[in-house]
Amino acid sequence: MNFLLIGDIVGRAGRRAVRKYLEDLIEKHDIDFVIANGENAAGGFGITKKVAEELFEYGIDCLTMGNHTWKNKNIYKFIDDEPRLIRPLNFAPGIPGRGIGSFLKNGRRIIVVNLIGQIFMQSHDSPFRVIDKNIKSLNMDADIVLVDFHAEATGEKIALARFLDGKVDCVFGTHTHVQTSDAQILPEDTAYISDLGFSGAVESILGMKPQEIIKKHLTGMPTKFKVGTGAVKLEGAIYRHGQNQITPLRIKEDQETREAEV
Amino acid sequence: MNFLLIGDIVGRAGRRAVRKYLEDLIEKHDIDFVIANGENAAGGFGITKKVAEELFEYGIDCLTMGNHTWKNKNIYKFIDDEPRLIRPLNFAPGIPGRGIGSFLKNGRRIIVVNLIGQIFMQSHDSPFRVIDKNIKSLNMDADIVLVDFHAEATGEKIALARFLDGKVDCVFGTHTHVQTSDAQILPEDTAYISDLGFSGAVESILGMKPQEIIKKHLTGMPTKFKVGTGAVKLEGAIYRHGQNQITPLRIKEDQETREAEV
Amino acid sequence: MNFLLIGDIVGRAGRRAVRKYLEDLIEKHDIDFVIANGENAAGGFGITKKVAEELFEYGIDCLTMGNHTWKNKNIYKFIDDEPRLIRPLNFAPGIPGRGIGSFLKNGRRIIVVNLIGQIFMQSHDSPFRVIDKNIKSLNMDADIVLVDFHAEATGEKIALARFLDGKVDCVFGTHTHVQTSDAQILPEDTAYISDLGFSGAVESILGMKPQEIIKKHLTGMPTKFKVGTGAVKLEGAIYRHGQNQITPLRIKEDQETREAEV
Amino acid sequence: MNFLLIGDIVGRAGRRAVRKYLEDLIEKHDIDFVIANGENAAGGFGITKKVAEELFEYGIDCLTMGNHTWKNKNIYKFIDDEPRLIRPLNFAPGIPGRGIGSFLKNGRRIIVVNLIGQIFMQSHDSPFRVIDKNIKSLNMDADIVLVDFHAEATGEKIALARFLDGKVDCVFGTHTHVQTSDAQILPEDTAYISDLGFSGAVESILGMKPQEIIKKHLTGMPTKFKVGTGAVKLEGAIYRHGQNQITPLRIKEDQETREAEV
Ligand SMILES: [Fe+2]
Ligand SMILES: [Fe+2]
Ligand SMILES: [Fe+2]
Ligand SMILES: [Fe+2]
Ligand SMILES: [Fe+2]
Ligand SMILES: [Fe+2]
Ligand SMILES: [Fe+2]
Ligand SMILES: [Fe+2]
Repeated sequence: MNFLLIGDIVGRAGRRAVRKYLEDLIEKHDIDFVIANGENAAGGFGITKKVAEELFEYGIDCLTMGNHTWKNKNIYKFIDDEPRLIRPLNFAPGIPGRGIGSFLKNGRRIIVVNLIGQIFMQSHDSPFRVIDKNIKSLNMDADIVLVDFHAEATGEKIALARFLDGKVDCVFGTHTHVQTSDAQILPEDTAYISDLGFSGAVESILGMKPQEIIKKHLTGMPTKFKVGTGAVKLEGAIYRHGQNQITPLRIKEDQETREAEV
Repeated sequence: MNFLLIGDIVGRAGRRAVRKYLEDLIEKHDIDFVIANGENAAGGFGITKKVAEELFEYGIDCLTMGNHTWKNKNIYKFIDDEPRLIRPLNFAPGIPGRGIGSFLKNGRRIIVVNLIGQIFMQSHDSPFRVIDKNIKSLNMDADIVLVDFHAEATGEKIALARFLDGKVDCVFGTHTHVQTSDAQILPEDTAYISDLGFSGAVESILGMKPQEIIKKHLTGMPTKFKVGTGAVKLEGAIYRHGQNQITPLRIKEDQETREAEV
Repeated sequence: MNFLLIGDIVGRAGRRAVRKYLEDLIEKHDIDFVIANGENAAGGFGITKKVAEELFEYGIDCLTMGNHTWKNKNIYKFIDDEPRLIRPLNFAPGIPGRGIGSFLKNGRRIIVVNLIGQIFMQSHDSPFRVIDKNIKSLNMDADIVLVDFHAEATGEKIALARFLDGKVDCVFGTHTHVQTSDAQILPEDTAYISDLGFSGAVESILGMKPQEIIKKHLTGMPTKFKVGTGAVKLEGAIYRHGQNQITPLRIKEDQETREAEV
Repeated sequence: MNFLLIGDIVGRAGRRAVRKYLEDLIEKHDIDFVIANGENAAGGFGITKKVAEELFEYGIDCLTMGNHTWKNKNIYKFIDDEPRLIRPLNFAPGIPGRGIGSFLKNGRRIIVVNLIGQIFMQSHDSPFRVIDKNIKSLNMDADIVLVDFHAEATGEKIALARFLDGKVDCVFGTHTHVQTSDAQILPEDTAYISDLGFSGAVESILGMKPQEIIKKHLTGMPTKFKVGTGAVKLEGAIYRHGQNQITPLRIKEDQETREAEV
């Protein structure tokens, strides 16, 4: 069974990248299931019902979230009725949404877990202890378990992956919006990559227009970030469960022709 | 002129990787100048005169530092007498060491600048404004200017690179110890990669033994981090100034034979 | 010469406290000059021209700011034309506003400096080095120099006060919205208090309604903070330059009658 | 029943303050039970068995801890055998020590809970949700419940106190080492103060010698903090359960004679 994992989709440009490339990627790489991080899908901050449905329509099976989960208030209106969208499991218990997605596809039970890191982020329950408490029952229910660990610090990401090594099938990182070159099979056979990267505008800083961000760093004053425009890219990884293989993926429009290149 | 840029060298394992691979790499890739981040070279934390000299002997021309600069007190004994080792330029003025290294090699004047980020780190002077103040005079003095931006947040790293695009020759990131897959030439011709990765033990978390780090995340209690052992790797990038090209580099010992593979 | 120093004025409730008590306080304590922190004066976040003018009308001579300086965009419209409102001096050079206020009152030249801390806050230039660079010229220009250090960490606040001890007349802290009981004359005769407290709603958390803040802590989800209502209080300190004396001040409306009590 | 609550005891100077004043305070104020924060009792960082026993001997009934709990490794040797010393309850489950102290004194069952904050601190389980889960059973077991909330942010401290208002008898804050002037009875009758202050050297920054701390702020370089010397002070509060009254307490040695003054 083959999984396409897509890094944080940033705004309209990110959604355009998915629309443009996803169908072909699914066919070309024989993809069975698509997971994408959607925390920046609506204007760069959060998600809406409309945007989520647009992304599901393109072929995404499961959307994960992160620190921007609640940025667009529209999410409160549909998160409890949408089992295909999950938010970090180690958010406080009892709040809207769920942290685990369970899917039956091609006869296999697939479970996706979303976790959020603690280092350099708002405080949440320990991702290590929360997943530890759930791991046995998840594995009893599922044929394949994948974890999106939405975190900043590389040390925390690899630590969680090593902690889960041999207990889940695949751990992939999101949030930094920069793809790492460390896709690998860990010693106990769990597939891992520290960060998938992002999908959105090529000429950008993490998907947003550079000018305002640079100005913010120079002046220390708040600036309004805008979603980048122009040529787009799609970043992520392909996890082949059968071969136990994980391969990074980067597709970019040509700046001039805006034609796809792999 | 060709530059080999080496990510944070972590402890004895990292130094062994340099000893094992550097000479061949220099020859194979026709390297003229070698820059490496040395902030973790002595036992994982800081550097000593002895360790610095060991690394210079292997063929490193310039050592840069970062947030671990002062972790080993031995540095105070030699930093002011060692122009080949630089620490972040945006540290407070008047303190030991220097933030700019100036080298004459193969008839070219090479200037290396070390900067440290502000996001998720101890407060320092703005790397943006500090480099901005120095950029003109640096370019008048040098044929080639390279910047090691030792920072955590990807957004800050890319913002600085875009700010310096067209003003320096190459900006490379260090500190996260995980190599990114975004080596590229920016629109105004500055070469860039968000992080070089690290050099040290393969079976490790950022160069340190996994067990204590995982335990720390599980318990919240301090644990003593130890430098990893076993097979080693060397990570970095090759920057070819003449061709304006930057290529990531990863070499890893085979776990069994400990023989080199590219 | 006697100074009334007023802690962060929070929203409408805080402004009402100033309107209600300031005139009487000036008369009763023979106040010559009034400084108040205005970073939360407009709806709890930032300040507007209208709100600033309202506060000046009540008898405030100088408004200082802090981390909420730019929260209300209206400030950009008037900050450069209003010398009575100052924002932290260690913000980036070249941005709107000024960090030093200079006032001639009752024949004395009074200089007020606003600084912001680095610990647990967005990065700014070092308040220690920025004030150090200015201290000589400030003292040449002024009869009396006062510093509002808007900072979170008590250690940083006291360190700055001790660093400035004997170099300025008075250092007072703002930002935590909770008054400290450590008003004192430091060994070299500088008057000091770690935090003035705040002016605003009594039944509140730092001036804002408790319910939403508690909910945020319980759920980790963003909530909309609202300015508190009901009985108000005014907190601050009186600094008597002639006697070199600093005394904390707290006035609170009676919950039932809303009559003043000292 | 009357409680003496003592702020963070910092090093030898802090212990001397306890030795010098505690016995008289107990007699003078008719104290039944003494709680003190001991996280800085041994050389400013952590605690040892010897130091804890010294403090119990002076008349302290219960020692609470905080972010410095594990700084001195000697604590691992005795924490599990010493029910009078508690560390934050919202540390990870299963680690050494306990977060709740239960005491029978003068015929009353007293329960002391230690919690640590999340804002500007290492991540821990939510103090709000952890105490919420325990509150019912604690109240069934105890006549009087007191909470030491060891936290940095005033907003988090007051939020927890308001959340616990009417559910426990007294919430007092520690950690900032600066006493606040907000001792009060909350609307639902819980006694509260944001911070007790500290016990230790008068001429100091939070109990440590000023020079090294100022140098650290000026240079950004690590310096070795030393416990302050000279005249000492003891800070805290008296909570009179019967009268439902909380009063701040500050005693300071005269700098010259080192004689006590209230
Ligand atoms: Fe994120
Ligand atoms: Fe994101
Ligand atoms: Fe680093
Ligand atoms: Fe490093
Ligand atoms: Fe503030
Ligand atoms: Fe404020
Ligand atoms: Fe503490
Ligand atoms: Fe403390």
